[in-house]
Amino acid sequence: MLLGSSEAEVKKRETALKIIKSKIKKEGRSTIYDLSGLAGGFPLKKDDIDLLETYVGPALYKEKLERLGIEHLGGEKILPFNRTTAGILATILALVKPGDEVVHYLPRMPSHPATPRSVRLVGASYKEFDNIEKFRVTNNTSLVMITGSTMDHDIIRQKDFLKVVEISKSKNIPIFVDDASGARLRTVIYNQPKATDMGADMVITSTYKLMNGPRGGIMAGKEDLIYMIKSKAYEFGLEAQPPIIAGMARALEEFNPKNMLEAFHKKNDIYKALKSTLANIKETPTGIMLSANDLMHELNRKGIKTSLSHTDIAFIFSMLLLRNYNIITITAVGMPGCSPTIRIDLASKDAERVDNDYIVSAMSEAFLKLSEVVNDKKTCENLLFGT
Amino acid sequence: MLLGSSEAEVKKRETALKIIKSKIKKEGRSTIYDLSGLAGGFPLKKDDIDLLETYVGPALYKEKLERLGIEHLGGEKILPFNRTTAGILATILALVKPGDEVVHYLPRMPSHPATPRSVRLVGASYKEFDNIEKFRVTNNTSLVMITGSTMDHDIIRQKDFLKVVEISKSKNIPIFVDDASGARLRTVIYNQPKATDMGADMVITSTYKLMNGPRGGIMAGKEDLIYMIKSKAYEFGLEAQPPIIAGMARALEEFNPKNMLEAFHKKNDIYKALKSTLANIKETPTGIMLSANDLMHELNRKGIKTSLSHTDIAFIFSMLLLRNYNIITITAVGMPGCSPTIRIDLASKDAERVDNDYIVSAMSEAFLKLSEVVNDKKTCENLLFGT
Repeated sequence: MLLGSSEAEVKKRETALKIIKSKIKKEGRSTIYDLSGLAGGFPLKKDDIDLLETYVGPALYKEKLERLGIEHLGGEKILPFNRTTAGILATILALVKPGDEVVHYLPRMPSHPATPRSVRLVGASYKEFDNIEKFRVTNNTSLVMITGSTMDHDIIRQKDFLKVVEISKSKNIPIFVDDASGARLRTVIYNQPKATDMGADMVITSTYKLMNGPRGGIMAGKEDLIYMIKSKAYEFGLEAQPPIIAGMARALEEFNPKNMLEAFHKKNDIYKALKSTLANIKETPTGIMLSANDLMHELNRKGIKTSLSHTDIAFIFSMLLLRNYNIITITAVGMPGCSPTIRIDLASKDAERVDNDYIVSAMSEAFLKLSEVVNDKKTCENLLFGT
Repeated sequence: MLLGSSEAEVKKRETALKIIKSKIKKEGRSTIYDLSGLAGGFPLKKDDIDLLETYVGPALYKEKLERLGIEHLGGEKILPFNRTTAGILATILALVKPGDEVVHYLPRMPSHPATPRSVRLVGASYKEFDNIEKFRVTNNTSLVMITGSTMDHDIIRQKDFLKVVEISKSKNIPIFVDDASGARLRTVIYNQPKATDMGADMVITSTYKLMNGPRGGIMAGKEDLIYMIKSKAYEFGLEAQPPIIAGMARALEEFNPKNMLEAFHKKNDIYKALKSTLANIKETPTGIMLSANDLMHELNRKGIKTSLSHTDIAFIFSMLLLRNYNIITITAVGMPGCSPTIRIDLASKDAERVDNDYIVSAMSEAFLKLSEVVNDKKTCENLLFGT
């Protein structure tokens, strides 16, 4: 076992960081493909930074975000948050009192913990449903939440969404949609309308999910409600800061539904192409993955035995992807204890810059290389720790 | 009255924005002096942005902030927040339970609302003191807060700080210091030790107060407490995001106590130099100010009468500073209803780049020009709205 200790994993990570820094320095950021799906976009230009450092800069980006946000989400007013979670907290602080009830409808339970946690904080009660037949509000319900798309990309059915709206409206209960990835997934891939166009009073989306923005949330909604929520946001320090707002505005400006559709097709094509060589490869909502066990099975299928652990071979594979193909995966650069599953996320911004063949060859050739070196301890150590 | 309506003020603001954008475009950001004191610093370099847009970037800036933060604040661990207010909320959520008591000692009451508001949210009780003789904790006290320096720059006395620590320690109550500007003001100007060196368990400082960082807060403290607070921060979306962390790290890197001391001397010198020409000028903790009334008095002292309002002449003065001396004040670029008081903040980052004579001449000459044009309506309108 090469990577049995935290120290060894730290050393592996530091090696990966060094390689990346040196590649960026020598050949520029554009030769690197970060397909981890976790790189926050921050598409600022030099002029943006100059302007941000004046008193007026922030106001100008706010105005820009207001315009682009309404284009993306509908509604009357825009409110940017430090995180989608912070936006959920602010909304519940503003609209829910102790003893009230919050009712949540999702395509599949359970909810992201942000909602029940905030409800608990204000001392209200909480109920969630994923069966529209059972969905109920009471006289105590002061807020109805809808999740547009879960983290696993389960999508709400449009008729269920409309049913929740109908029930809530009949009792004059405000409707708040957590459309973190749904604001794009529902509309672009599944042709559903914007949440506000289906009757939502507020909607929030994440600016780093299926779009190239920094981590954060943009809320859109009715002016009077947004005004109440804004005041809670400022009271507790939940609002997005100007550099983040500028990054969000640029990301919205660059967002292109066509690219997003292409990413989804790309994923299907790459998955199909790799399936023949790597039979154990799996699909994810926006990419492909190969666990340490899958990798070991693939080696065994080829009649290769090794004394290395499952984890070792996953880490070596990730370093081959990085060293030979400039592909960053979490496995290469993660902190000690990170998952040894190789994930390639085609919704990553950098995925736009690589064609399918490159990824298919990189994966197949890295596996070929892995099968060659897996019993050569010296080479494996060099791949993991050598600079 | 030239600026009686919101519409006219919007037009004035837009004119100022156009002038600034065109000056930055033509002559570069370095020819502009934003002395508003409200420009958030965001001293990122192009390389920073390239690196930020990879999965590993954020981790590298976090490590950098950890090192520089401990240098600045002491303590064992660093935790960056979206705002100082968000850090106070996270701390109270982590350490205070319903029915507990939070006791706050300040050099002068009342506290910034962030603290009592967060205490109320968790259902605890709150007491504050600015007289050390009366300071008391009870068996219910689960957190003691200390404010190092108020917003008006009242500074805690070192012996009072130590007395609060002594009382709190004797009851094993954790001590949290809100050192938003105090972390620099107390130490650099008043030669006091770091809060952690006087026994604080946690301290938080604002990265845009008396230093050139983005709006946000950095907390330092004991590892076990920071760990508890961090978990609440992530639960509710209160932590600073990677681009902000990178900006904080750069700002800490650039922070220089010598420059800060110089800014304080600069302020005194400029104030003295202007006092002879503009008798009504006032000192602020970090700069000088001249209200609309003060300006009118100055005109009257010179025997000049005008049909313009107080507000009009303040706005015209601010546009003269901007047009002729490239000095940005809030009065020129503020939203409708903003204060018509001309404020020059010598703790602004740009103040480092102008010498005293420039500011003294700009103020005196702008006033001279004002007294010449104040009865020439056409010229005044041009100054306010002409491009």
